Amino acid sequence: MSDPVLDRLCIDAIRFLSVDAVEKAKSGHPGAPMGAAPMAYVLWDRFLRHNPAETAWPDRDRFVLSAGHASMLLYSLLHLTGYQLSLDEIKRFRQIGSRTPGHPEYGEIPGVEVTTGPLGQGFANGVGMAIAERMLAQRFNRPGHTIVDHRTFAIVSDGDLMEGVAAEAASLAGHLKLGKLIYLYDDNKVSIEGGTTLAFTEDVAARFRSYGWRVLGPLDGMDTAQVDAALREATSSEDRPTLIVCRTTIGYGAPTKAGLNVAHGEPLGAEEAKGAKKALGWEHPEFTVPPQAAAHMRLALQRGAAAMQDWNQRFHAYRAAFPAEAAQLRQAVHGELPPGWDVGLDSLFPPDKPLATREAGSQALNRIAAKVPALAGGSADLAPSTKTLIKDGGDISAGAFGGRNFHFGVREHAMGSICNGLARHGGVIPYAATFLIFSDYMRPPMRLAAMMRQRVIYVFTHDSIGVGEDGPTHQPVEQLMGLRSVPNMVVIRPADATETVEAWKLAVARRDGPTALVLSRQNLPVLDRSIYPTASSVKHGAYILWEASPDPDLIIIATGSEVSIALDAAKQLQAQGVAARVVSMPSWELFDAQPADYRERVLPSRIRARVSIEAGAKVGWERYIGLDGGAIGLSTFGTSAPAKDVYEHLGITASHLVQQAQAVLHRLQRAKVS
Amino acid sequence: MSDPVLDRLCIDAIRFLSVDAVEKAKSGHPGAPMGAAPMAYVLWDRFLRHNPAETAWPDRDRFVLSAGHASMLLYSLLHLTGYQLSLDEIKRFRQIGSRTPGHPEYGEIPGVEVTTGPLGQGFANGVGMAIAERMLAQRFNRPGHTIVDHRTFAIVSDGDLMEGVAAEAASLAGHLKLGKLIYLYDDNKVSIEGGTTLAFTEDVAARFRSYGWRVLGPLDGMDTAQVDAALREATSSEDRPTLIVCRTTIGYGAPTKAGLNVAHGEPLGAEEAKGAKKALGWEHPEFTVPPQAAAHMRLALQRGAAAMQDWNQRFHAYRAAFPAEAAQLRQAVHGELPPGWDVGLDSLFPPDKPLATREAGSQALNRIAAKVPALAGGSADLAPSTKTLIKDGGDISAGAFGGRNFHFGVREHAMGSICNGLARHGGVIPYAATFLIFSDYMRPPMRLAAMMRQRVIYVFTHDSIGVGEDGPTHQPVEQLMGLRSVPNMVVIRPADATETVEAWKLAVARRDGPTALVLSRQNLPVLDRSIYPTASSVKHGAYILWEASPDPDLIIIATGSEVSIALDAAKQLQAQGVAARVVSMPSWELFDAQPADYRERVLPSRIRARVSIEAGAKVGWERYIGLDGGAIGLSTFGTSAPAKDVYEHLGITASHLVQQAQAVLHRLQRAKVS
Repeated sequence: MSDPVLDRLCIDAIRFLSVDAVEKAKSGHPGAPMGAAPMAYVLWDRFLRHNPAETAWPDRDRFVLSAGHASMLLYSLLHLTGYQLSLDEIKRFRQIGSRTPGHPEYGEIPGVEVTTGPLGQGFANGVGMAIAERMLAQRFNRPGHTIVDHRTFAIVSDGDLMEGVAAEAASLAGHLKLGKLIYLYDDNKVSIEGGTTLAFTEDVAARFRSYGWRVLGPLDGMDTAQVDAALREATSSEDRPTLIVCRTTIGYGAPTKAGLNVAHGEPLGAEEAKGAKKALGWEHPEFTVPPQAAAHMRLALQRGAAAMQDWNQRFHAYRAAFPAEAAQLRQAVHGELPPGWDVGLDSLFPPDKPLATREAGSQALNRIAAKVPALAGGSADLAPSTKTLIKDGGDISAGAFGGRNFHFGVREHAMGSICNGLARHGGVIPYAATFLIFSDYMRPPMRLAAMMRQRVIYVFTHDSIGVGEDGPTHQPVEQLMGLRSVPNMVVIRPADATETVEAWKLAVARRDGPTALVLSRQNLPVLDRSIYPTASSVKHGAYILWEASPDPDLIIIATGSEVSIALDAAKQLQAQGVAARVVSMPSWELFDAQPADYRERVLPSRIRARVSIEAGAKVGWERYIGLDGGAIGLSTFGTSAPAKDVYEHLGITASHLVQQAQAVLHRLQRAKVS
Repeated sequence: MSDPVLDRLCIDAIRFLSVDAVEKAKSGHPGAPMGAAPMAYVLWDRFLRHNPAETAWPDRDRFVLSAGHASMLLYSLLHLTGYQLSLDEIKRFRQIGSRTPGHPEYGEIPGVEVTTGPLGQGFANGVGMAIAERMLAQRFNRPGHTIVDHRTFAIVSDGDLMEGVAAEAASLAGHLKLGKLIYLYDDNKVSIEGGTTLAFTEDVAARFRSYGWRVLGPLDGMDTAQVDAALREATSSEDRPTLIVCRTTIGYGAPTKAGLNVAHGEPLGAEEAKGAKKALGWEHPEFTVPPQAAAHMRLALQRGAAAMQDWNQRFHAYRAAFPAEAAQLRQAVHGELPPGWDVGLDSLFPPDKPLATREAGSQALNRIAAKVPALAGGSADLAPSTKTLIKDGGDISAGAFGGRNFHFGVREHAMGSICNGLARHGGVIPYAATFLIFSDYMRPPMRLAAMMRQRVIYVFTHDSIGVGEDGPTHQPVEQLMGLRSVPNMVVIRPADATETVEAWKLAVARRDGPTALVLSRQNLPVLDRSIYPTASSVKHGAYILWEASPDPDLIIIATGSEVSIALDAAKQLQAQGVAARVVSMPSWELFDAQPADYRERVLPSRIRARVSIEAGAKVGWERYIGLDGGAIGLSTFGTSAPAKDVYEHLGITASHLVQQAQAVLHRLQRAKVS
């Protein structure tokens, strides 16, 4: 039985903690917390199954604040329900080193499931979480033993719903009939430029119905009874995802700003804040939590403890009945890999015949997938080309989440964001595949994966002008450099099948961030590892593959499909009396992370005659070739023709490399003489 | 009165030109042309108002093949209706230097309105074209003188409709009630991975109705009568955009591949092609166009000539009645700028008080907009922050296209793609504004703008960690480098208000590609141009701003907000006895385009002691600082705190710069000694 007075006290406590924090920070978004506090309160008080004292409980409900700018709403809830977030931290909102940054950041604050802020991302992350839950449920639950069974809730804003990524994810969520996915739409009719009538007049409810969602409302999102009833209905059947349209007033209570865009993104100001408190009958000093509100909200700790105790008992029984499964669940949830998962991969590829690295990647993926059951993923409708199907892995589809192959549709952006949700949920090691060129469609989630340090594996095939006939719209140029410049992203562009295996191993083993595997469409010679050093050096990012002399005149640095061109050129140079060293550099990031002496050994400072070759943008290669070197690569878009012709046309050839090398040597010689 | 036999002959001519070209190229997409030929034929034969002999006729209908992989469909139509595309070119499909690249490329082929291939883009481009038409109509038509009055048609695929960018654009098209926008949806139920049931089971018709579109069908898209009737209905009223759902069979006629994904992206093979010809009763040698089909299709030339003659007469009358408007229309359509449009901008900003470059940009934009009526744009719901409103410019909204301010909603991706459509239509010089971080949401259309050499201006504010409290999700790091690596993109990050004016002038004047203006949120000192050289040097990309000596020991290269930090540091170094030169480098691309001697003057090869400073990713700066220099910048994400604290925390400070400079000098000194 709810107590309306107490409810209101709690809701206002959320509101004014938010308002006070924004005022103190002199920066932030007070409007959304003021309008959305009632729905958030009802959800957290009556529906969300969580344990503030144990944030890693695997069967907790997930909550995503997709409208991340309303961060103070979440921080207020976390503080009030007993998470490790003190009032002092709330007072340090948006200050250096605080646990209360401007937007919720995963890793900073216990209880924040996912970093949000860029709109639409949280929406799609939640879809990933809901899929992960179903996958683990199907994999681990047994008759009479339901140990994976939780919901994913989110609060989403009109901004989220305008973003294409949310549209893509919503269509997929409907397709997959994710019945445990429940989103509250904070429909406040206000966007930054003014009313949503300026740009957003579609029938949102009808749109979501067209995706196969249940749509409830519109209801008064500030009426707890109405929100309660809708959440009750949403949780009562699980045949499809639910959107609850909640009409709210942004900046509710603010005397002159309520309902207006000016309440969105800046402090109310002292007067207006005072007016809001007066209007809502809030007579406490700043940052006050009335004891009754505190006591009531902290009941979440008791409920959480009880729920977890219940789950622990059930898990105990499960473990007794299914010890192997219980151990596997533990392993999956902790993101651990089974012992020996990477054994026997090294000798996959004898140098018999050329192989595209996408094909080698396919074999590596399949070998690893056979040992690592958590590995699952798919492509944005390109699996036959990206070669990323797990054979006999089964498809993921509505009602059938035991499979391991996703069909994301032509939805790269949602694919990336859903993978973030899968990774953040845990229990799944996701990979996302598409052509390298279409990585452009999914940059925002890749950045967030890097920021959240999530193990998401990107498989980007068709990695250069080697795409050939499909032409410039499909030939990546600047994408490699674009990926390399993302902090904490590891990009690996293997030279051949043997390096591809190592790249896959590194990607799966890496636990603190995403890895992009950049693979060729075209066949490449397989380097004979009885002649060349072991491919395990991929982990060092770059290594000496071949040299005409231990004291070479020149260093050629190459990646991916251009490594074999570099070898050709080096041997031609040798015939011309120039001793070249060929460095295979599959990964800048891994190389840059090596100790200085290793880097110095591979690229000695004294050797300034350096030429890079990569069938991508030249810009940036000065990092390794300096001001004196030469770069073979592109500064224009590609062209449509058979791959060989395109390489020739754009000068990505051994003869051009030889010529460039001679020019560099000549220039340096001249400089020395003069 | 249509002749079914003749129609069928023409349709099959389209089909088998496509099939033959793909077979000959041994690469391409035969399936879509075979299924979509009937709808394309009906559209081009009976509805599309165009003149194959005069592709620049401004009042032509626009046709977009959003499903760009079906390029042979379009090339067949172009060839058959009399565009300058010979049969020999068709035979050179996908070969080097041909006018028939794998995907339609603007600029290569007369009649290709826009480069397509990356899915969803063409859909959104069409929306931009339809908006441009309405804008010009409202600006130039006069009672009794309707000189702008054309439609935008497209063929779109399921892949297009899955992409979020199309969803965003569709919502906006419905919002704006673009009644002259008519899309044929080639609903063949097949995607690359298999049937669309794998991933795409939403109710497309209901979704488009929710956006405010008229949806016709589903109908048999291979029945010319049904397509004809639907197009008739679509063109009969103009109250909202129309989607015609046309069920088709991919690879129609192919004996074993029809209706299957294997018909999509590879040649049918000789046997299958033969079988298809047999099945459809096509008994001609390869690359044959039956004379009756040729004669009929080439009637487009007559119709086009007549339509243009009619229009020319009307334009003549218009010009007589409204000479000034006619001259302006001509100017707008040709993308010319009125004489004196850039006069008087130089002295806008005295060095009185600090000013954010976004604010200076706002003033520059408004001054230019007052003289350049074609300049129009808006932001993805951030105008109050990006400061990109044209004052008194009026809003663009349904039925009111006389305004100049777009409200794109929180739809960065569609904004970018719509701007491409506006630019490609002509008559509008579009700008698109958002925070720099959200440029990540619109990378695909930016790339296409660069590839198509279109004048699109991006206004990216909040350009660094200077964003402050909003934290890492909102603080760009890698975005600058990401933009710089796009071929033919000019990126300008001005140091202050005076450089901002120059940057805006360059962006508006540039006719052969897009320009990204990268502007600060925070106030920056305005450089006193009575002390420092003129800001007009921005056009050289980089220039010597200040130096302690004409023969300096060290060069500091800075951009944007870090230029004033560099000046501080240089003066501190002077006090320490180090003569530094400060180079302001607002644009890499413009600098790289200077003659070698200019570049050598600014960055003499002999001076290897160089330090760069930019509040963005460090990686890439080696281009100018080489292997011996030092970079002040970021290799991690930012943090949430007031901007000043973030700068301090991440070491983007004059004292760090001084320290780095001394370290570089020391290192070089040591290297020289040893």
